[in-house]
Amino acid sequence: MSAPVPNRPLRLGMVGGGSGAFIGAVHRIAARLDGEYTLIAGALSSTPEKSRASGEALGLSRVYDDYLAMAKAEARRKDGIEAVAIVTPNHMHAGPAIEFLKRGIHVICDKPLTATMAEAKKLAAAAAKADALFVLTHNYTGYPMIRQARAMVAAGEIGRVRLVQVEYVQDWLTEAAEKSGSKQAEWRTDPERSGAGGATGDIGTHAYNLACFVSGLTAEALAADLSIFVPGRALDDNAHVLLRFEGGARGMLWASQVAPGNENGLRLRVYGDKGGLEWAQEDPNYLWFTPFGEPRRRITRNGAGARPEAGRMSRIPPGHPEGYLEGFSNIYAEAARAIRAHQAGEKVPEGVLYPTLADGLAGMRFVEACVQSSRRNAGWVTL
Amino acid sequence: MSAPVPNRPLRLGMVGGGSGAFIGAVHRIAARLDGEYTLIAGALSSTPEKSRASGEALGLSRVYDDYLAMAKAEARRKDGIEAVAIVTPNHMHAGPAIEFLKRGIHVICDKPLTATMAEAKKLAAAAAKADALFVLTHNYTGYPMIRQARAMVAAGEIGRVRLVQVEYVQDWLTEAAEKSGSKQAEWRTDPERSGAGGATGDIGTHAYNLACFVSGLTAEALAADLSIFVPGRALDDNAHVLLRFEGGARGMLWASQVAPGNENGLRLRVYGDKGGLEWAQEDPNYLWFTPFGEPRRRITRNGAGARPEAGRMSRIPPGHPEGYLEGFSNIYAEAARAIRAHQAGEKVPEGVLYPTLADGLAGMRFVEACVQSSRRNAGWVTL
Amino acid sequence: MSAPVPNRPLRLGMVGGGSGAFIGAVHRIAARLDGEYTLIAGALSSTPEKSRASGEALGLSRVYDDYLAMAKAEARRKDGIEAVAIVTPNHMHAGPAIEFLKRGIHVICDKPLTATMAEAKKLAAAAAKADALFVLTHNYTGYPMIRQARAMVAAGEIGRVRLVQVEYVQDWLTEAAEKSGSKQAEWRTDPERSGAGGATGDIGTHAYNLACFVSGLTAEALAADLSIFVPGRALDDNAHVLLRFEGGARGMLWASQVAPGNENGLRLRVYGDKGGLEWAQEDPNYLWFTPFGEPRRRITRNGAGARPEAGRMSRIPPGHPEGYLEGFSNIYAEAARAIRAHQAGEKVPEGVLYPTLADGLAGMRFVEACVQSSRRNAGWVTL
Amino acid sequence: MSAPVPNRPLRLGMVGGGSGAFIGAVHRIAARLDGEYTLIAGALSSTPEKSRASGEALGLSRVYDDYLAMAKAEARRKDGIEAVAIVTPNHMHAGPAIEFLKRGIHVICDKPLTATMAEAKKLAAAAAKADALFVLTHNYTGYPMIRQARAMVAAGEIGRVRLVQVEYVQDWLTEAAEKSGSKQAEWRTDPERSGAGGATGDIGTHAYNLACFVSGLTAEALAADLSIFVPGRALDDNAHVLLRFEGGARGMLWASQVAPGNENGLRLRVYGDKGGLEWAQEDPNYLWFTPFGEPRRRITRNGAGARPEAGRMSRIPPGHPEGYLEGFSNIYAEAARAIRAHQAGEKVPEGVLYPTLADGLAGMRFVEACVQSSRRNAGWVTL
Repeated sequence: MSAPVPNRPLRLGMVGGGSGAFIGAVHRIAARLDGEYTLIAGALSSTPEKSRASGEALGLSRVYDDYLAMAKAEARRKDGIEAVAIVTPNHMHAGPAIEFLKRGIHVICDKPLTATMAEAKKLAAAAAKADALFVLTHNYTGYPMIRQARAMVAAGEIGRVRLVQVEYVQDWLTEAAEKSGSKQAEWRTDPERSGAGGATGDIGTHAYNLACFVSGLTAEALAADLSIFVPGRALDDNAHVLLRFEGGARGMLWASQVAPGNENGLRLRVYGDKGGLEWAQEDPNYLWFTPFGEPRRRITRNGAGARPEAGRMSRIPPGHPEGYLEGFSNIYAEAARAIRAHQAGEKVPEGVLYPTLADGLAGMRFVEACVQSSRRNAGWVTL
Repeated sequence: MSAPVPNRPLRLGMVGGGSGAFIGAVHRIAARLDGEYTLIAGALSSTPEKSRASGEALGLSRVYDDYLAMAKAEARRKDGIEAVAIVTPNHMHAGPAIEFLKRGIHVICDKPLTATMAEAKKLAAAAAKADALFVLTHNYTGYPMIRQARAMVAAGEIGRVRLVQVEYVQDWLTEAAEKSGSKQAEWRTDPERSGAGGATGDIGTHAYNLACFVSGLTAEALAADLSIFVPGRALDDNAHVLLRFEGGARGMLWASQVAPGNENGLRLRVYGDKGGLEWAQEDPNYLWFTPFGEPRRRITRNGAGARPEAGRMSRIPPGHPEGYLEGFSNIYAEAARAIRAHQAGEKVPEGVLYPTLADGLAGMRFVEACVQSSRRNAGWVTL
Repeated sequence: MSAPVPNRPLRLGMVGGGSGAFIGAVHRIAARLDGEYTLIAGALSSTPEKSRASGEALGLSRVYDDYLAMAKAEARRKDGIEAVAIVTPNHMHAGPAIEFLKRGIHVICDKPLTATMAEAKKLAAAAAKADALFVLTHNYTGYPMIRQARAMVAAGEIGRVRLVQVEYVQDWLTEAAEKSGSKQAEWRTDPERSGAGGATGDIGTHAYNLACFVSGLTAEALAADLSIFVPGRALDDNAHVLLRFEGGARGMLWASQVAPGNENGLRLRVYGDKGGLEWAQEDPNYLWFTPFGEPRRRITRNGAGARPEAGRMSRIPPGHPEGYLEGFSNIYAEAARAIRAHQAGEKVPEGVLYPTLADGLAGMRFVEACVQSSRRNAGWVTL
Repeated sequence: MSAPVPNRPLRLGMVGGGSGAFIGAVHRIAARLDGEYTLIAGALSSTPEKSRASGEALGLSRVYDDYLAMAKAEARRKDGIEAVAIVTPNHMHAGPAIEFLKRGIHVICDKPLTATMAEAKKLAAAAAKADALFVLTHNYTGYPMIRQARAMVAAGEIGRVRLVQVEYVQDWLTEAAEKSGSKQAEWRTDPERSGAGGATGDIGTHAYNLACFVSGLTAEALAADLSIFVPGRALDDNAHVLLRFEGGARGMLWASQVAPGNENGLRLRVYGDKGGLEWAQEDPNYLWFTPFGEPRRRITRNGAGARPEAGRMSRIPPGHPEGYLEGFSNIYAEAARAIRAHQAGEKVPEGVLYPTLADGLAGMRFVEACVQSSRRNAGWVTL
């Protein structure tokens, strides 16, 4: 099971995540769950007043009016934050990330990387120069059975990969929620704040990241048919994508926010010439494995057949379900291990895995390519 | 539940379906299950000797050396067969179908329609002139909950259809079974006998047919990425297809015979602006229905929420599963109703539904378009 | 897969099963499905008029006013029926069964054996003297994966059996359906026609039979807490039963007809010191097998891991579901094999299995013991 | 969703939970997850050395040699702990609980209440006199959909309750793990440390508690057939129990630790005269609800159909699974709400629910009655 809790939690700050935000609360729980971080500082909202109110509600020691003030002040303190969580809408990722990175403060940033490819490149350049880590919360890679699946593919248990089928299906934008007061819907359907991708950026990037993470493959080209089903919407709410991977594997990716009856239906299936793997986020404690010609097997988190790569991401015995927050926490815990190694002047320990800037850039390229392809009537675009 | 068993079974003949064949036995059970047919004549194999041996094993009254002899002789008899089941490989559908049709003997033919579009057109022309019915066994449309789904869509219960996601996934051709003695694999991977489509023709046509049957929509264009994963194979064993329907709905179709862990994973999901429907052939007695914003509901065959369109296809109470053979029999029963109406000089009774030549031609066009599109690097092809 | 269809169907008669009856139609399909029987004679209803009308609707060659007339007449004919299906309410089993058996006509009788133990013993005595077989349609033992389970237990794959948990749960008697015109509900809640057991007799006997069939164990004692939840009902509509088996295994049996949301929830779980098996009738094509300390495996009908004992009960490839009617037909097919052997003066072929009078007597004793135990406040009753 | 995080975490101590313990780590995460507590003091092991080592590994501010020293010292401090978590084996619950309670320190104690009824009564007497709360971690009552189920029953959505079927099934004691070095197995199968119940006490109490919590009913009598299947074991590893509730409802409870293939199979089904509810701990985000005569509905945590009673126990949107740790945390969060109210001199806020001493006593009585009944050959014992 999980490693012993460390003696001293890392000092964490947060940009965004004021009251009313959804993902900020998730990051706070994820940071806290394993005792790896203690949240002490924040610039939580777009206005100083709101930021202050939110900071007080959270009992933070130090609340700032804006992220720049926070980056400057914290960098000067001996007991300043060691890492910052950036949980703003997409267009507000690059700015703060660059400011903290250049001051040596590690960044844990929500996905997708940025709103635009231009910002993404600027951020990448800043990160390359910085003496600090950049961690992107493609949180689904923190699920134990996803680690299990990746390890099984890498070990050749399904043979050479031929097919990667992935989907992330929701229904919450079936109607124009952005016009009836949902803040979440507002910014996620707004190109200014979200970027060029709608469902593509918001959930398609997760699906794409997961497909590559588990299969161990790089996609070479895609053909995308994006749709806007809800009248008046500016960004895609459904994406149908064909994928071609290096080495000849092929895949399909479906991302939708308009499929009634689906909540967070992220589902991955990978097939090779010797076996197949199937996993669903809504039922994450199981991985279904079929060696070709044998009965299907249900491998459980921490149960029989689970590998160390899954076990180290798990806290409790099998049959006691862990979920979304635990998977998210695993990314925070992996980040903590990497940060502690960095602080000690050591390499990231073997087996520690977290999504990086490279993953973020790949996600941005995925969105960009989807949009390009769709404009060209679903013609192939090289990745 | 099902209509009262009629007094007199229809006299049925069979072309193909000799010993060793899979689908012939299925047709025989389907014809027998509801007591609607009695099998009395056959030309069951490619050689007179085998045909005779198979006919004797089945206890047929009249066994013929070949289908032409059978068509001629039966047409002359007062007690000749009233319908014939054609269960040969694809390239042997058109020949016998034309001979029986032109002699006024109703034809119940396995899918896909033919091996080539040229044959399909010849058959269509013959059928148009004939005083006999042509029934294609797209048997999955006989499942009660598929009828339920179609009726619900037609009644507007999911609103305007936006998305149609369909897949038919198998694993039995993961390795080169056609080289290790499987007769089924041999002809199904042989362009001479199967036609231009591999997985596309064998199971993709079923998926395509089902998607159109339930959604009530016509597909206007497709883009297909066909693959051959098993070295040495001449026909696609995996098909990734994007679909565009009339009125703006879009879809994805995945047909595969190389996905380990999947047996007959035919799964259909249809989403509209008011709700969603999900169904899986391996668990066919349930239809999952979600009115947008309400909890998901499980409608059972003959149970609460089931419509008359489903009930009339069902024989026993809910909770007692019916399966593939019952669904197949439903097509035979629908055909019997149509044949009896034809014999009585009446119109096909309202509500009686069976796949026709038009469905067969649409399937042939689907295969042809998939192959064309794939050759053009998954460019769109109008249907 | 299933054996070749025989040349000549056996001539079958039917007692009961006139229009409106549920189980009669099931028996007819089961007899017909594999082509093993042809139904030619019947005494289908309680009055000559109804019997005649039902017989005509079914297109029977010979319709009788009552079962005695039928037994006498058919026994005299050269082309008389070789077997008779008895599908009347429980109190009408013993009478006809005895008349046919004593004339050498094989009997296929619906369960439970009779309405009273006195009748059961009389029937047993008659059967012991008769030169004809008695087959009881505990149809669930005809499911392929039940045969698989039994064979696995017998082969020691779960070790020494410790626990047998079985339940058969319905909801159709949640309200007083017997007072609102349901004929099924009327006789099944009527002690005159059903006997001393309500849910106990109607579905509890199935559950009990299945538990013993699969585990290979004999129950030695039971303690039962029977309830009548619907006011005015004379027979139990819920049964809670503790079981003790020979050799120390223990079990629980739950039979209910008042559990809303359950249709035909027959579920069996058997655990030994080396592994466990789980099966559910509503999803009958799978058997879940866990060797202790290994991942759970899903064995499919005719798929990987299926044994010959399951394969011979199966008609089509895995992934194409077979259901209740196929399982019922398997009992008819097993009976046909036994009858043909009897006709040839041979022993029943090895591996052919069907529920017998002994099973029927055990079921009667189960009901009797449940009632006794419940009257004694759930004290133990030896079986 | 969940209430805003409070400004100041409560100061928490821990008794037991040193390295190697399972449930201690769970309590620590549960205390931490919502930011309601900060763990600062502990007496973590049976020896001062081990206690100190464990305390250091956890980074505690104050580590004590034993619980008495801790109770005395903390009670004297101004910044002493406000609550203590007791996570020792059962026989070590009463001692520390009494010491902390009598000093006004709130107690959060693992279940079952104690090892013996005598201890339980002593503890109850102490609690009655104390100015501090006693919270028992029957953690499964913290699952959102269990709250939903309880609220639905209370609101009459399934009508008058007739049946309560509950089971808690594991397999980890299928072999004699207590003889091969499992500390968990050792104390849980040891009457000195566990008390009179094996599976009965360890998991049966959870099942019993849940059944009563959701149904809102009090059990009046039980009949239990306890078994020891593994040779040499002193306590039951399987329990079959019949239940009778006030008002005429009846139930079955099955607790087993020797059923291969089951991890933590806690499953509850409650049926009334108007509907039914089903829930399984391994898939805890769903509650299945069937109004009699309507299709089964899947209510999801925080999704359509979820009530406020479930929503307030939930942190994230539906489709993102929460699990065991979140449910456990909910008990800690409820306790925090009660403690804060107590500190403010207020009543526990309406809707705040946590398992109390009364639940603990009921569980002890359940174990005692099971043992009594089993000794009397499963005779009824009044509760």
